[in-house]
Amino acid sequence: MALIVQKYGGTSVGDIERIKNVAGRVIKEYKRGNQVVVVVSAMGDTTDRLIDLMKEITDDPDPREADMLLTTGEQVSIALLCMAIQDKGYKAISLTGSQVKIKTDDCHNRAEIMAIDNSRILKELEQGKIVVIAGFQGINSRDDFTTLGRGGSDTTAVALAVSLGADRCEIYSDVDGIYTTDPRIVPEARKLDYISYDEMLELACLGAKVLHPRSVELAKAYNVKIYIASSFNYKPGTIVERIDEMEKRNNVTGVTSDKDEVKVTVEKVPDKPGIAGKLFSKLAEHNINVDMIIQNLQYNNLNDISFTVNKEDFIKSKKVIYEIAEELGSPQVDIDTNVAKVSIVGAGMITTPGVAARMFTALGKAGINIQMITTSDIKVSCLIAEEEADRAVRILHRTFELADIDEGVEGQVQ
Amino acid sequence: MALIVQKYGGTSVGDIERIKNVAGRVIKEYKRGNQVVVVVSAMGDTTDRLIDLMKEITDDPDPREADMLLTTGEQVSIALLCMAIQDKGYKAISLTGSQVKIKTDDCHNRAEIMAIDNSRILKELEQGKIVVIAGFQGINSRDDFTTLGRGGSDTTAVALAVSLGADRCEIYSDVDGIYTTDPRIVPEARKLDYISYDEMLELACLGAKVLHPRSVELAKAYNVKIYIASSFNYKPGTIVERIDEMEKRNNVTGVTSDKDEVKVTVEKVPDKPGIAGKLFSKLAEHNINVDMIIQNLQYNNLNDISFTVNKEDFIKSKKVIYEIAEELGSPQVDIDTNVAKVSIVGAGMITTPGVAARMFTALGKAGINIQMITTSDIKVSCLIAEEEADRAVRILHRTFELADIDEGVEGQVQ
Repeated sequence: MALIVQKYGGTSVGDIERIKNVAGRVIKEYKRGNQVVVVVSAMGDTTDRLIDLMKEITDDPDPREADMLLTTGEQVSIALLCMAIQDKGYKAISLTGSQVKIKTDDCHNRAEIMAIDNSRILKELEQGKIVVIAGFQGINSRDDFTTLGRGGSDTTAVALAVSLGADRCEIYSDVDGIYTTDPRIVPEARKLDYISYDEMLELACLGAKVLHPRSVELAKAYNVKIYIASSFNYKPGTIVERIDEMEKRNNVTGVTSDKDEVKVTVEKVPDKPGIAGKLFSKLAEHNINVDMIIQNLQYNNLNDISFTVNKEDFIKSKKVIYEIAEELGSPQVDIDTNVAKVSIVGAGMITTPGVAARMFTALGKAGINIQMITTSDIKVSCLIAEEEADRAVRILHRTFELADIDEGVEGQVQ
Repeated sequence: MALIVQKYGGTSVGDIERIKNVAGRVIKEYKRGNQVVVVVSAMGDTTDRLIDLMKEITDDPDPREADMLLTTGEQVSIALLCMAIQDKGYKAISLTGSQVKIKTDDCHNRAEIMAIDNSRILKELEQGKIVVIAGFQGINSRDDFTTLGRGGSDTTAVALAVSLGADRCEIYSDVDGIYTTDPRIVPEARKLDYISYDEMLELACLGAKVLHPRSVELAKAYNVKIYIASSFNYKPGTIVERIDEMEKRNNVTGVTSDKDEVKVTVEKVPDKPGIAGKLFSKLAEHNINVDMIIQNLQYNNLNDISFTVNKEDFIKSKKVIYEIAEELGSPQVDIDTNVAKVSIVGAGMITTPGVAARMFTALGKAGINIQMITTSDIKVSCLIAEEEADRAVRILHRTFELADIDEGVEGQVQ
């Protein structure tokens, strides 16, 4: 008898028919003789609807009260899913974050899980029940409800899998798995059977919306396998796991693009030691996450410092950026929203020389200008003009022959 | 500094504008220098909406999961009301039934409050906060959420007033107070400044929807004054309290009618000792509340036994009633839904002879046939044809001169 944690996102429980569908899937797993713990998000647009109500009152809600409001969304889902399971003749029980005792820190709206109390869950499982748990929520030291912020329900699922020592953690949504790139851009994109935590982490950070980076980090830290698949069909999905035998991996696993970037150029700051340090520490102080950075020496010992930030972060921090620029003596800040970041990701890159060069060459041949570059052990990203993004993805997908690589066999693309 | 418990019903928090209005009223009380604990129901039709979702899944939901679902309604209200109070610059905090620790028994959907833990509420009040508490809900010994059933939020408010030793318990809804009768039937109906617990209890049981009988019983048991008024204006309402000086009270305080009755006649049962006892114990076993009873001896030692039950109860228990009748040897059950119960209520009746007789005479003179009668110390009820109900109410209101009695002065109607 295995213990399985399944997580169903908001689209998967978007209406009553879909909840019934999820009930059927959960029961199917239970009938295999397994213990099943199910984590669900709020139904479809419930959270948006609650936020709309909130905005009719205030633009700046108390974070504690916002969590009080938003945690009702998952509570509705767990109750309805339990009823749907029970209606098909199986035993089920719903538990909120506070009932499970998913202990978090005190940061309302973006709390982190500190500990999970398994006792109630185990008691209910022992009684043969399917246990349905509200994702995205926990309880702090004051018994107040907290929410985990973005990717919260994925994190709940992985944290529960860790805490319960589950045999599998399955994340169901409306996508079939992880692809070599976005199939809407490249129709011949191929679904991956396996992907490593690090690659998944890069892809998640690069805008693949399937799994939130924090849940991947947690899974990596505790070595929990995640199975990603669709709740709308039974096609095989993708397993995210530790892949130690690097040499058996492809050098490039996937291509992504992210159009949610803004390039900010702080012009003509004095070319003195410590200026860049000052700029980026101040941005960090204001919780502004900087992604790519480039510095160009101009005439008269003046520098242009460019960096990219996420569009949403930019809107929030625009004022601060201008203030800092002024403080550093910059006469002008240039904002370019017409940019996109294309990236290649692959655990095999470290051991394969020339991968980055092949990327730059391919883009160059296609006449696509590279404005900025960042690299990591398993990723190379280039900032290009936004309108070139889809073409760049198609070129790179072809360059690295991602459509027809047999996974686990080395050297196909060399 | 007084401690005030205020309760606002679903209509009073029906939309965001009304929630803001309630916030203003709460703050007004707070600014008088008082500590304020607010109990709120779910917004307008929220509960109905949740029940509709539930019915799409099952007609027979697990009571625990139904409570899990329904308790979200008040949780939304308390969060939004707190935000509205905070938005006006005052400190507020919301607490669910489980956070307060409103301990109930295990009867999901109709739980009774066993105890309330004051500690969290007092801690928040001491910090100068307005404390907003979810009505209608509690928590049982297993930490599961329970709901209190009908009149639940009123009961929460009174129970909190008792537990906290509040100076006042104010129940706000969309009615201005308690009237001598329904103003929609008798335009000259007069609002009462005071009413006794017992009179209120009779009126509540007779279908006055303002306050649920169980909250009145609780208030009476602990001698908590209840102030009933509208949340939509500042007109003076009605105080429900202990009124010891009976001789100063009017003999009749109010007239009510209740069209939610069904008359059931179990025909031709043998006139043997114990038959009626058997019938009514069996009905009681099935939780069928019988109101009025009459027994007529027919020919051949056969009896017709008539009783009235609430319409809703009747629908639920129809099958059981027919089964019991058959068991008792009755060849026929007659159902009459075309009935209504008109009642006069008044604490002074006990000490004033002839009140019932005046009622019967007045109805008789008007040609209204009385089918059944029940009386208590402070109430006389007559079952009549439904279409005569409004006319009967007008006649009785006039007979007992309820429109122009000065309260607290005896003998005006003698």
